[in-house]
Amino acid sequence: MHEADQGHGHTHGYSEHKEELLKRLRRAEGQVRGIHRMIEEDVYCIDVLTQVTAATKALERVALGLLDDHLSHCVAEAAAEGGEVSAEKLREASQAIARLVR
Amino acid sequence: MHEADQGHGHTHGYSEHKEELLKRLRRAEGQVRGIHRMIEEDVYCIDVLTQVTAATKALERVALGLLDDHLSHCVAEAAAEGGEVSAEKLREASQAIARLVR
Amino acid sequence: MHEADQGHGHTHGYSEHKEELLKRLRRAEGQVRGIHRMIEEDVYCIDVLTQVTAATKALERVALGLLDDHLSHCVAEAAAEGGEVSAEKLREASQAIARLVR
Amino acid sequence: MHEADQGHGHTHGYSEHKEELLKRLRRAEGQVRGIHRMIEEDVYCIDVLTQVTAATKALERVALGLLDDHLSHCVAEAAAEGGEVSAEKLREASQAIARLVR
Repeated sequence: MHEADQGHGHTHGYSEHKEELLKRLRRAEGQVRGIHRMIEEDVYCIDVLTQVTAATKALERVALGLLDDHLSHCVAEAAAEGGEVSAEKLREASQAIARLVR
Repeated sequence: MHEADQGHGHTHGYSEHKEELLKRLRRAEGQVRGIHRMIEEDVYCIDVLTQVTAATKALERVALGLLDDHLSHCVAEAAAEGGEVSAEKLREASQAIARLVR
Repeated sequence: MHEADQGHGHTHGYSEHKEELLKRLRRAEGQVRGIHRMIEEDVYCIDVLTQVTAATKALERVALGLLDDHLSHCVAEAAAEGGEVSAEKLREASQAIARLVR
Repeated sequence: MHEADQGHGHTHGYSEHKEELLKRLRRAEGQVRGIHRMIEEDVYCIDVLTQVTAATKALERVALGLLDDHLSHCVAEAAAEGGEVSAEKLREASQAIARLVR
């Protein structure tokens, strides 16, 4: 965890879209709870699988939104500063993208 | 939704792994709730993104487990029966796999 | 490699779509060669990346087509036979799907 | 296609890794040609599918390498310049990442 960068009040790339992100995450949480209920109620596999795929794609969209905000704020600011700060932020972003793609 | 195939007491491919699936889904639900909290607490984007990617991969593993059970039970039984029942089950499985991959 | 199952004349799930598959693979091969040329000619990164993504998706479609054919022929036939032959074919298909998804 | 940015002699993010990229692309092209031959020789579906998945992952690695280079050169330079040039480069990178992930 990045100690220096976290904690209340610190603004990040996603600060502008915080409410939208929280809403999407509550919806995704509800989707996962709904899948739990489908399994309890012995719903047909393919119908459960369709919901799991939908929840996975919803989380993917959250990830892409976070990445977009991070690039256009945190990475852009660091790149404007240049030097090792910029190089570290870019390396970090690339590794996050690789984790997401794989 | 497949009316004939759902509802309490009906066993599906995943019935054998029901408790394990429910446990994984509760964990995934907790992960999503945790991400919600990280956003509320303005945690650094990359740390949030790492958790979203982890939750996405956890749901992918649930999907692959469901698919594995579905193939080795529902699809295998239908294929043993042959005819249109088998063809429909196989078509359905292929479409579910395509949705998961894309 | 599955010695018993390969070699000329043996029909597989994809035999019906062999020409279509060969055409898609030639096209994918041409796409990769085109990307090679773009790099040689110092074309802009994003335009190259767009073509690499397109070639990746083209290969994904080939994989899904192969899987669909394999399920509806090889797996269906094995499942009709039942026993260990069926179990092995289903295990194999599930592992192939997992490799594709991850 | 980005007219202004392409054409011989122009250096891009990947220029430093050009030979490595060209080598990987030749290898990927060879993999696709090999898959074509497997289909012609009626090789078993799962063995063909394993090679298609491998070629897909190889192209994914090429894409991630291109993206990494693009971020740390083209995007970093544009961000240092700031303004609309930077905003456009970041938007473009985000859209390329989204295409790759989906």
